[in-house]
Amino acid sequence: MTELTATTLQQLAERYLAVWNETDPAARRKLVDEVWAEDGRYTDPLAAVAGRDAIDGLIGAAQAQFPGMRFTLGPVDAHHDIARFTWNLGPADAPADAEPLVIGFDVLTATPDGRIGAVYGFLDRVPGA
Amino acid sequence: MTELTATTLQQLAERYLAVWNETDPAARRKLVDEVWAEDGRYTDPLAAVAGRDAIDGLIGAAQAQFPGMRFTLGPVDAHHDIARFTWNLGPADAPADAEPLVIGFDVLTATPDGRIGAVYGFLDRVPGA
Repeated sequence: MTELTATTLQQLAERYLAVWNETDPAARRKLVDEVWAEDGRYTDPLAAVAGRDAIDGLIGAAQAQFPGMRFTLGPVDAHHDIARFTWNLGPADAPADAEPLVIGFDVLTATPDGRIGAVYGFLDRVPGA
Repeated sequence: MTELTATTLQQLAERYLAVWNETDPAARRKLVDEVWAEDGRYTDPLAAVAGRDAIDGLIGAAQAQFPGMRFTLGPVDAHHDIARFTWNLGPADAPADAEPLVIGFDVLTATPDGRIGAVYGFLDRVPGA
């Protein structure tokens, strides 16, 4: 089994969130193609999609739903070809100690060539809850 | 996409831990065959294996390493065909409020026929840490 370094997995998690934060459609799609495996799968409580087209569309829809928001990455715990991490979503101009609007948790699996094979997502805080 | 019910995923998580607690080799292997997909994969910080033979062997080795211990399951958060949960490992005869020796966290993916396709495991507490 190919093992990626913790640094590679850390960077992959950072690039994964960079895609969520890239609101220019052409730039976002370019990042999706670079970061995700062609048959990558994404599942969270609200969506289950496969393939770069569907992933790009899902991220675009989420950005439209939360304009002016920004994702930030928590500590990454990685081994073998998997990583887990928490992410926050809040206003881009919020102070660093502000409570995030949404808190999520993902497990990411990497392909041998260092792309995202799958993301298994869960939510720890949702608006209004 | 086939979606399993939360009840099915809850039961799958319970059966997954039942395998870890079954120390009779023949009974354990029977459970492995029932609960895991034939090409199921298991990854944690100390191991990455695929297939029922390897999974059964790994669980047997862990049981030999922690004799008299018992796994208990925390709350299960499930959607689509995935579930996340914490588990504790401690002496089988410990009081219910005793601190566990090991605390782990798994994301489990289910196949359409309700078996385990993959487990992505992480550790939140290890002995001596």
